[in-house]
Amino acid sequence: MEKLSIVKISGNIIEDENVLNDFLSLFSKIEGKKILVHGGGKKATQMASKLEIESTMINGRRITNAETLEVITMVYGGLVNKNIVAKLQALRTNAIGLSGADGNSILSEKRPIKEIDFGFVGDVKVVDNDAIEVLITNLFTPVFCAITHDGKGQLLNTNSDTITSQIAIAMSKKYQTSIYYCFELKGVLSDFNNKDSVIKHIDSGRYSSLLSEGIILDGMIPKLENCFYALKNGVNEVFMGNTNILTKENDHFTKITL
Amino acid sequence: MEKLSIVKISGNIIEDENVLNDFLSLFSKIEGKKILVHGGGKKATQMASKLEIESTMINGRRITNAETLEVITMVYGGLVNKNIVAKLQALRTNAIGLSGADGNSILSEKRPIKEIDFGFVGDVKVVDNDAIEVLITNLFTPVFCAITHDGKGQLLNTNSDTITSQIAIAMSKKYQTSIYYCFELKGVLSDFNNKDSVIKHIDSGRYSSLLSEGIILDGMIPKLENCFYALKNGVNEVFMGNTNILTKENDHFTKITL
Repeated sequence: MEKLSIVKISGNIIEDENVLNDFLSLFSKIEGKKILVHGGGKKATQMASKLEIESTMINGRRITNAETLEVITMVYGGLVNKNIVAKLQALRTNAIGLSGADGNSILSEKRPIKEIDFGFVGDVKVVDNDAIEVLITNLFTPVFCAITHDGKGQLLNTNSDTITSQIAIAMSKKYQTSIYYCFELKGVLSDFNNKDSVIKHIDSGRYSSLLSEGIILDGMIPKLENCFYALKNGVNEVFMGNTNILTKENDHFTKITL
Repeated sequence: MEKLSIVKISGNIIEDENVLNDFLSLFSKIEGKKILVHGGGKKATQMASKLEIESTMINGRRITNAETLEVITMVYGGLVNKNIVAKLQALRTNAIGLSGADGNSILSEKRPIKEIDFGFVGDVKVVDNDAIEVLITNLFTPVFCAITHDGKGQLLNTNSDTITSQIAIAMSKKYQTSIYYCFELKGVLSDFNNKDSVIKHIDSGRYSSLLSEGIILDGMIPKLENCFYALKNGVNEVFMGNTNILTKENDHFTKITL
């Protein structure tokens, strides 16, 4: 099967113009078919603050009310997405910016209200791999922002790590898929106080022991759960680290396999 | 040749949720291939005002500085475009939202500085009809916002009437094209104080006499010049009026031919 790279960039890359430019230059050099996924990082929070929209937090988690969704749609879907697309075009990568509503590519479902009403937050139901396939076989490079829709006219704020893994899973029926999660660290660390303590390879067995030893904690747990979910559903390999994982010039990153 | 409808909606349709919903319902019922073009109307001005961005006007014309371009990118490219796309998906029209940077579909050139520096405003250079053709033959309905790019990474604010006619001209090499300019009036009026005084048909000869008689004035002149430019360059017919022109249930609209 042909290879397909799905790359997700975290907020810290989007927030710094120079870091973003360096990343996009590396991304444009990836050979073969590729997809980019991004959120909006602090830019959305800054815009909400300028517009005096209050961020409602429940148990430390942000609630997406109607006004916050508007800001996210403006910042992720407009400002960040269109600027990334224009920059990629300058690098001769024929990018096409998408939300999950575009081409009905990612259908989601508003998260049901249990203890917490998260507001306009969507959980992915269906990724239309045929729609995405049409674009990539015609040599477009899809650039997804972290917004989906419910098919009934409602946009929904959606976790960009989940969007990435769900796209990769859907596309793994047609391609040999690799996910690259680019974030601020060199990889998964064995000692959070030592930024160089990168764990170079994690498989299911190693993951279990890292968990039981308490080495993997907090926000890293859902990220890794998401990676193993993708691997169990057809994704070939997952890389986590800074933008260096795109070149693999050294082994200072984490490779995750089943 | 197969038919293609290119529809442009003006600000008044975007600004009123009910009017927009009615319009989109009519648009989704247009048979055959179609393209939608929109700006952002007063929503961009309102957002700029909330963000305390000053609008610089020179000789009554707005200047697009860097901050204004950001607002336009957020409002046109994000808020308005993604909401229209989600609403069209709910109407079973497989919309895909685009700026001219997406798929490198509309390349423009920053307007040269003569007496006035308009800032980040682009004049259309090339519409890539192959890129648009790929999308529409795969049954996507492109929804363009009034933003283009210069191919060097810069987004540019671009007149949406011009985008519409330039897309129609480019597509007329492959399709029999009709343009529908939907705005707040029933059509071109012979008496501006009588909203029912619609001129039902204007051809080149009639246009000359209407101009010399002083019946067509002010902002309507560049709009009609743009229509005749499109007609002279391959577009089949142009309609101007309110959303009624999409159904043609009566003849209260203006049809423009060479």
